[in-house]
Amino acid sequence: MLKLKTKHFLTGTECSKEELHGILKLAEELRTERKAGKNRTDLAGKNVSLVFEKLSLRTRMSFTVALLEVGAAPIELVSSARKKETPEDTAMVIAQYSHGIMLRTFEHENLDRMAKKCPVPIINGLSDSHHPCQVLADLQTLVQSFGKLEGLRLAYVGDGNNMLNSILLLMPYLGVHVVYSCPKGFEPNAFIVKQAKARAKEGGGSISAISNPKSAVEGVDAIYTDVWASMGQEDEELEREKVFKGYQVNEVLYAAAKPTAIVMHCMPMVRGKEISEKMADHPNSVIYRQAENRLHAQKALLLGLMAGR
Amino acid sequence: MLKLKTKHFLTGTECSKEELHGILKLAEELRTERKAGKNRTDLAGKNVSLVFEKLSLRTRMSFTVALLEVGAAPIELVSSARKKETPEDTAMVIAQYSHGIMLRTFEHENLDRMAKKCPVPIINGLSDSHHPCQVLADLQTLVQSFGKLEGLRLAYVGDGNNMLNSILLLMPYLGVHVVYSCPKGFEPNAFIVKQAKARAKEGGGSISAISNPKSAVEGVDAIYTDVWASMGQEDEELEREKVFKGYQVNEVLYAAAKPTAIVMHCMPMVRGKEISEKMADHPNSVIYRQAENRLHAQKALLLGLMAGR
Amino acid sequence: MLKLKTKHFLTGTECSKEELHGILKLAEELRTERKAGKNRTDLAGKNVSLVFEKLSLRTRMSFTVALLEVGAAPIELVSSARKKETPEDTAMVIAQYSHGIMLRTFEHENLDRMAKKCPVPIINGLSDSHHPCQVLADLQTLVQSFGKLEGLRLAYVGDGNNMLNSILLLMPYLGVHVVYSCPKGFEPNAFIVKQAKARAKEGGGSISAISNPKSAVEGVDAIYTDVWASMGQEDEELEREKVFKGYQVNEVLYAAAKPTAIVMHCMPMVRGKEISEKMADHPNSVIYRQAENRLHAQKALLLGLMAGR
Repeated sequence: MLKLKTKHFLTGTECSKEELHGILKLAEELRTERKAGKNRTDLAGKNVSLVFEKLSLRTRMSFTVALLEVGAAPIELVSSARKKETPEDTAMVIAQYSHGIMLRTFEHENLDRMAKKCPVPIINGLSDSHHPCQVLADLQTLVQSFGKLEGLRLAYVGDGNNMLNSILLLMPYLGVHVVYSCPKGFEPNAFIVKQAKARAKEGGGSISAISNPKSAVEGVDAIYTDVWASMGQEDEELEREKVFKGYQVNEVLYAAAKPTAIVMHCMPMVRGKEISEKMADHPNSVIYRQAENRLHAQKALLLGLMAGR
Repeated sequence: MLKLKTKHFLTGTECSKEELHGILKLAEELRTERKAGKNRTDLAGKNVSLVFEKLSLRTRMSFTVALLEVGAAPIELVSSARKKETPEDTAMVIAQYSHGIMLRTFEHENLDRMAKKCPVPIINGLSDSHHPCQVLADLQTLVQSFGKLEGLRLAYVGDGNNMLNSILLLMPYLGVHVVYSCPKGFEPNAFIVKQAKARAKEGGGSISAISNPKSAVEGVDAIYTDVWASMGQEDEELEREKVFKGYQVNEVLYAAAKPTAIVMHCMPMVRGKEISEKMADHPNSVIYRQAENRLHAQKALLLGLMAGR
Repeated sequence: MLKLKTKHFLTGTECSKEELHGILKLAEELRTERKAGKNRTDLAGKNVSLVFEKLSLRTRMSFTVALLEVGAAPIELVSSARKKETPEDTAMVIAQYSHGIMLRTFEHENLDRMAKKCPVPIINGLSDSHHPCQVLADLQTLVQSFGKLEGLRLAYVGDGNNMLNSILLLMPYLGVHVVYSCPKGFEPNAFIVKQAKARAKEGGGSISAISNPKSAVEGVDAIYTDVWASMGQEDEELEREKVFKGYQVNEVLYAAAKPTAIVMHCMPMVRGKEISEKMADHPNSVIYRQAENRLHAQKALLLGLMAGR
């Protein structure tokens, strides 16, 4: 049974290479079990609070179903009204009732503060700076498509957001070569890039930035994109559309990648904006599978953090 | 065990007469079982997403409890925030996690679009044009009161809305004679009436329109009404009250029906508007029983769509 | 097995002394069981609706987990949209599906109206005038700290709100001497104080009002406070801060109590306002334990109201 050494899962960098591979292996086993109609009871009698500061479809459903299918109860909380209560106090209260906490927050700092004295595991279900659970699912998707991670080449095209941060921190650490192509002013956080490059060195992957999207995707195994305006940036939308215009993942761009290249998107996607209709529905699109893998990967993570404790 | 041929349940017209009778029979068995404190496990290990674009009490509770009592897990989703994601994509994502989807929507078209490529059953929990689950419960209520459907006479008095549409499409198809009495400009959709009349012919029932409510209820077995202003029509409320004034189900109107006539309302009801206080609490009012039957009828529907697949 | 004679639990005054002690005893047993990882199945196959007119963290989580851990299913409802439906009708509809109802409401009258003809138990999860479930948890906390209730002295400092009302009605009835210290104009409801004093006499406790907070806490075993502006009073906040300034529970005030005095707060707390940072984290603060005890006390209450019926 997988037992992670870390108590919390906030950025994914808490896990060793072996542990990340362990999560991916268990996730794939859980996928096979689910297809065969088998559920688990490892976490029977336990419950996990799913706390949302942002609305959610995938994160909510994948964690909810993951918990149900390992015997645990999900408890969903919307946190908007607790402004005056400190994150530390909120975490302490939830920990009186729950055996774990998943938080989706606008401020990553809330996760750090909650984790400080909280006696139960805290999982980052998306913050303004990190989205490690999505990358677990994406890594599983890459293994499904190519049978391995080492040596794969992935190009991320678009906004240098939380999604890209987590890709940079986790994928090259497992041997993937990541190129990112972001418009000027929308590059990923320099501090995270620096940290990610050190980890890439350790893991055998690499990180490079190529501003021209066509050059960036040349010969890659996978093209990854995300929405141009994330939740909370709706008012910048029109302005952003102008900036990102040349960064659409479409047939022209795709032609520069390997013929077998897969198309990735963490969803929700805006068809016709960051991704063309055709590429969204392309035979090599693995977008729905990425969503599915959230379920398996997070189930594995939950077991690794909570089973047998 | 009931096995419906249709994959989705969007208007109720997907089901044959035999299948509708099968749902009603199973619903009544499930009612007896529940009274005896027995639950089922037919859908154990499965989950169904309950997606709400409109707020809900009855639909939400009846589906939630129906699922729990056949062993499945309900997952409730509020969909307001996913404007830019297409209904097709939303359905595809939910289908990665859930074994069925119930949608309550302002636009029936969303149901049709979701059903198009969705690999799991989709159930209409109320749309702007149809409310077939309520009619299943109402049919069960009629059978409970009269022991049969064929030859019964029901008068619908009030707004020619989604509720009436589904009554017209499903009740005469099972032999009920439906008279509707709606103010000018608030008659049901002509296209649906035409379709419903063809189905009535096939089923042995009939459909007629009588604008005077008193004449409409003369000698009927059941009087049915609904709110004058549905959700989303709050601003038309005062105007509607004027138009519908003569259409209140009250003691005077009731006197024209059979002495044994039952009073029906799908709730929520506004006492003193479309129904008088006295009629709401009348000994022949079956209003709460209609609400109860939502549970049994939908449980039967869920089993018919999902059990053993 | 504890079986309460009352059907509903609206103010806590429905229970006899013996019954209240029975709840506290069972709550403590349930705490021990939970620590040992044991859950119950007494309410298996049942569900309870948790209806919220106000947002909630503790009430929601503690009831949700309490229900799950005795085998029942919680069904959460937000009631804002059902303005036109009477509370009586809403209760009757919920009762078709649920085996019990917990209501958190702005108007205590809604509880009384729902209870009138509702066939299933109704529990007050917080109203504008009462918060009896919190006091059950507080009584359990007092017993944990001091091994008894009779003869204990507790000072409540701050706003004469629903929290204080329930403290006055329930604690002296079990032998606790309660002093309250509220600013002029923010004293508890005179009618409730009168009722509470009669109950205090019967129970061996006492009630007194001392406007100076320092004199009020002199030699007490417990200091209790609550937020200065409850939910819905956000616009009075600044004005209230001025009035309540001298009523902060801080080190200076605490020095006047017994050295072993415990610090109590029903949460959420605003650190630096009604309670100083230091007192919130003081070794004698039992604030998180009060939150925890909501779970055990409410579990006992649910069993007492619903098990074996």
